[in-house]
Amino acid sequence: MACVSVGKALRIIALILMCRLVGYLGSSIQLDELLYKPEHSLHHQSFNPQELKSGVVCADGVGVGWYDALGEPFIYRNTIPLWNDTNLEELSHYVKSDCALGYVRLAEAGSTLDMSNCQPFRSDKLLFVHNGAIANFQETLYRPIRSSLSDSTYRLIKGITDSEHIFALLCEYLQSSPKSSLLDALRATLNTLTDMAKEHDTSFSANIIVSDGRSLCASRYAYGTEAPTLYWSTHDVNHPSNVTVASEPLSNQKWLPFAPQSTLFVKAKSLQPLTSVLENAA
Amino acid sequence: MACVSVGKALRIIALILMCRLVGYLGSSIQLDELLYKPEHSLHHQSFNPQELKSGVVCADGVGVGWYDALGEPFIYRNTIPLWNDTNLEELSHYVKSDCALGYVRLAEAGSTLDMSNCQPFRSDKLLFVHNGAIANFQETLYRPIRSSLSDSTYRLIKGITDSEHIFALLCEYLQSSPKSSLLDALRATLNTLTDMAKEHDTSFSANIIVSDGRSLCASRYAYGTEAPTLYWSTHDVNHPSNVTVASEPLSNQKWLPFAPQSTLFVKAKSLQPLTSVLENAA
Amino acid sequence: MACVSVGKALRIIALILMCRLVGYLGSSIQLDELLYKPEHSLHHQSFNPQELKSGVVCADGVGVGWYDALGEPFIYRNTIPLWNDTNLEELSHYVKSDCALGYVRLAEAGSTLDMSNCQPFRSDKLLFVHNGAIANFQETLYRPIRSSLSDSTYRLIKGITDSEHIFALLCEYLQSSPKSSLLDALRATLNTLTDMAKEHDTSFSANIIVSDGRSLCASRYAYGTEAPTLYWSTHDVNHPSNVTVASEPLSNQKWLPFAPQSTLFVKAKSLQPLTSVLENAA
Amino acid sequence: MACVSVGKALRIIALILMCRLVGYLGSSIQLDELLYKPEHSLHHQSFNPQELKSGVVCADGVGVGWYDALGEPFIYRNTIPLWNDTNLEELSHYVKSDCALGYVRLAEAGSTLDMSNCQPFRSDKLLFVHNGAIANFQETLYRPIRSSLSDSTYRLIKGITDSEHIFALLCEYLQSSPKSSLLDALRATLNTLTDMAKEHDTSFSANIIVSDGRSLCASRYAYGTEAPTLYWSTHDVNHPSNVTVASEPLSNQKWLPFAPQSTLFVKAKSLQPLTSVLENAA
Repeated sequence: MACVSVGKALRIIALILMCRLVGYLGSSIQLDELLYKPEHSLHHQSFNPQELKSGVVCADGVGVGWYDALGEPFIYRNTIPLWNDTNLEELSHYVKSDCALGYVRLAEAGSTLDMSNCQPFRSDKLLFVHNGAIANFQETLYRPIRSSLSDSTYRLIKGITDSEHIFALLCEYLQSSPKSSLLDALRATLNTLTDMAKEHDTSFSANIIVSDGRSLCASRYAYGTEAPTLYWSTHDVNHPSNVTVASEPLSNQKWLPFAPQSTLFVKAKSLQPLTSVLENAA
Repeated sequence: MACVSVGKALRIIALILMCRLVGYLGSSIQLDELLYKPEHSLHHQSFNPQELKSGVVCADGVGVGWYDALGEPFIYRNTIPLWNDTNLEELSHYVKSDCALGYVRLAEAGSTLDMSNCQPFRSDKLLFVHNGAIANFQETLYRPIRSSLSDSTYRLIKGITDSEHIFALLCEYLQSSPKSSLLDALRATLNTLTDMAKEHDTSFSANIIVSDGRSLCASRYAYGTEAPTLYWSTHDVNHPSNVTVASEPLSNQKWLPFAPQSTLFVKAKSLQPLTSVLENAA
Repeated sequence: MACVSVGKALRIIALILMCRLVGYLGSSIQLDELLYKPEHSLHHQSFNPQELKSGVVCADGVGVGWYDALGEPFIYRNTIPLWNDTNLEELSHYVKSDCALGYVRLAEAGSTLDMSNCQPFRSDKLLFVHNGAIANFQETLYRPIRSSLSDSTYRLIKGITDSEHIFALLCEYLQSSPKSSLLDALRATLNTLTDMAKEHDTSFSANIIVSDGRSLCASRYAYGTEAPTLYWSTHDVNHPSNVTVASEPLSNQKWLPFAPQSTLFVKAKSLQPLTSVLENAA
Repeated sequence: MACVSVGKALRIIALILMCRLVGYLGSSIQLDELLYKPEHSLHHQSFNPQELKSGVVCADGVGVGWYDALGEPFIYRNTIPLWNDTNLEELSHYVKSDCALGYVRLAEAGSTLDMSNCQPFRSDKLLFVHNGAIANFQETLYRPIRSSLSDSTYRLIKGITDSEHIFALLCEYLQSSPKSSLLDALRATLNTLTDMAKEHDTSFSANIIVSDGRSLCASRYAYGTEAPTLYWSTHDVNHPSNVTVASEPLSNQKWLPFAPQSTLFVKAKSLQPLTSVLENAA
């Protein structure tokens, strides 16, 4: 349609804010294998992103989450550029994990940087990172999402990002359907978001990586707009030792793009990635 | 009553978190006259508080708000101890104002320090600081307060403190009754809070200083618990050049304690402080 | 010469680290007129620099210095990106000055960010910012510069940057020749540096802005390498209301490039900029 | 002597600045066993110190160092109060080590907090923490210590604390006598310091814990003043599983005070602590 209303134009601008994500499930590695060592590591992506649709760098915060040998999740977050975080660099040389998420932030201009708005988010065993945006979030789904939550999930929210609210929807689903797989929960969350976006006349993109330590699930999804790119890789399809998901390929090895409106699901036991296309597409 | 339930005991513990406040209206001064120079300045109170009911120091953040000659409000906030904030010290030697608020924070243990949870809060011309607590806020009035707000006020909230939510109630009242005085607005807010606390079986304390640059209003108030102390001073009652309100007297000059459940209201034009006792007392 | 030694190559790499500077002397303005409002303000230069020889953004710190009506210098510094510093934005809307310096930092990779390594530097009435580098500073002039200083100047140094050590040389000169003009002091400093660089077989670039509140002096200078660009502007040469110096033009108005190895000197009384070429050139 | 000069009085004031330290060598533990879990953990000591001679709290920075299974040293440092550092809390639940140092800082009033002035300091395999002070350091031993260093050690120094300069002396000794034990190096360092203090008419206290991962060495020492207290503990003298050193006992179990002018040395292999009194005493 040639005619775009001002509201629509603003919405599109609001949507192009983007972070850079990475997720890993496989044999135990040091975190620096994701954050620093690859040619186009998260560190490199933070100051030299190749597929960022807006902004110049992702310098407004950094976070990493990982599981220890007992399956307990840990997080480290900061509001400074990854490249200035010497503590994170130390940490990444020390921590070994078979499941980890990483994140560098591009925040909305003019906002105060709060640690609580930094990802990954955590609840019980879950770790979660999100790249994308709900268009005009404060005016559209902010209050409706909160209103839909049970008291216990409502109280989990510490910040004001759309990302944390999407995570709250996912937690809410798992609270009411505790036997669901992560994939079911992520799909249900995207469906709920899509329904809400339709009802409140907005759009969103939701590239998500979520894990419980035993499985990892990722989505490239959007409603009413285009989703950012997302890639995944496994060294050897027949004998995979890991599955890695990232906003941009970390290296020159073989990386596959996520199809639009698709998910990837992988369990630690098998390391066989299962990709599927979502039906409830825009 | 000799019998206190466990819930009540927890509530009392939760209530004794306290910050230190100062407010000023009068002839133009440098901010260091409030923050550093007095014998028991806010700086001194931050590491050597005398009337703090819990905690040892107020080192979990600092903030100052002031008005320029045109009546525009400015804020400076940080999440470090006042005594380590060299930028604030510079600023306080530079800024001159006839109306200012100051604040040092004692935060709940174990929480992430976010700038958005630092006071003063600001909305349009209003600056606001609060010392006290809503007992078990997350479980009691957090959601009811938010639900009572209009969309525009709802969106003002950037953090998760009880203080910011009390401020939102005050903003809500002024939005619906824009011709009210600050005193009316503060009284109405305390009444609303009291009604909500009764309904949700909780208690709170609310020592508040709020200003619009042309008048300053303060309360020492509590429902179901005891309010922290609060003091005020004016150098010469007959020919006052300023009215200062503070959690603890800044100096050896004459300071008067606020009566329990009382307010003080003063306009820049007259500088005649008006104190009154609130009727809706616990 | 076609043959460049490895040492030389490293030297060149080390030299291309760069910050962005701005200096102002003239009728009183709000700081936001330098930091935020111009089309290519320091804010804009911090994430979208046009003439940076290395790096992508200047996000490793920010600082501003200014003089009040009595000629006292003030500084504000932080180790976060300018674009995330909400306190600086507030401050820049409040502060009015007839003489100010601004700075955004591009730090060496992998170093811990310390406030003490943030500019402007200050000593007595002097404010100072530097863009450029002494090649392999730690291995070349770090210790020789320190050894050349009197005890009182030695103790001024709080950090480990080449910039602060160049400032120390300038302070040392003014301490021994207190009646010198800023221009004489800056020239002498550059001469001393050049002699030291020759002696210790290194190179450096020194784009400097220094002020005492009553005059402002700037240099574009290098020895053994090329100096970064530097520009200056005055609205009306015949009736100037100010002189502004900046790493990159702040706007489309007329800006003049500094010639290589040149200085600009201007006094608050006349606002007549005096440019001159340095004799002791590489 | 009844007569104390002004210089002496100032010196005494300058000396009473104090941090809190802990060191551990033994069977592998989680860091939270030192930092959070004991009744009087480093966390508890940070806001409720019992034997601090000056100040109220140790809120001006925090640091921890540890060795991994391969003997590589890691550090984490921050400039905020330990009790507000949620990243450190996460980390301390994750990191397991058989050798660790911890530190909470009480900084000089009015100084800018730089990460580089936070302990532990590290060089190669060494980790080092210091509690105490060189009296009037900037005016007495600052420059003499630096002048005594080789170029390579000189360049290790990133900050301006007396602590880091004492560490540099120790590194210098080990560089020239690489086969020395830590105990020899610490003794030599204290001797050198004592000689320098005599020559430059100053005093100092040096409670130090230093480790290379395979042994741990601690001192309680002062020249011309009194050393802060220091304690050590081992659960079972006959069958020790660890040796812990701390500024204040972490718990009610048996802790032994260090004698004045004494050292403790323990190797990981034997875990048999060797205490001795230093001859070169004030």
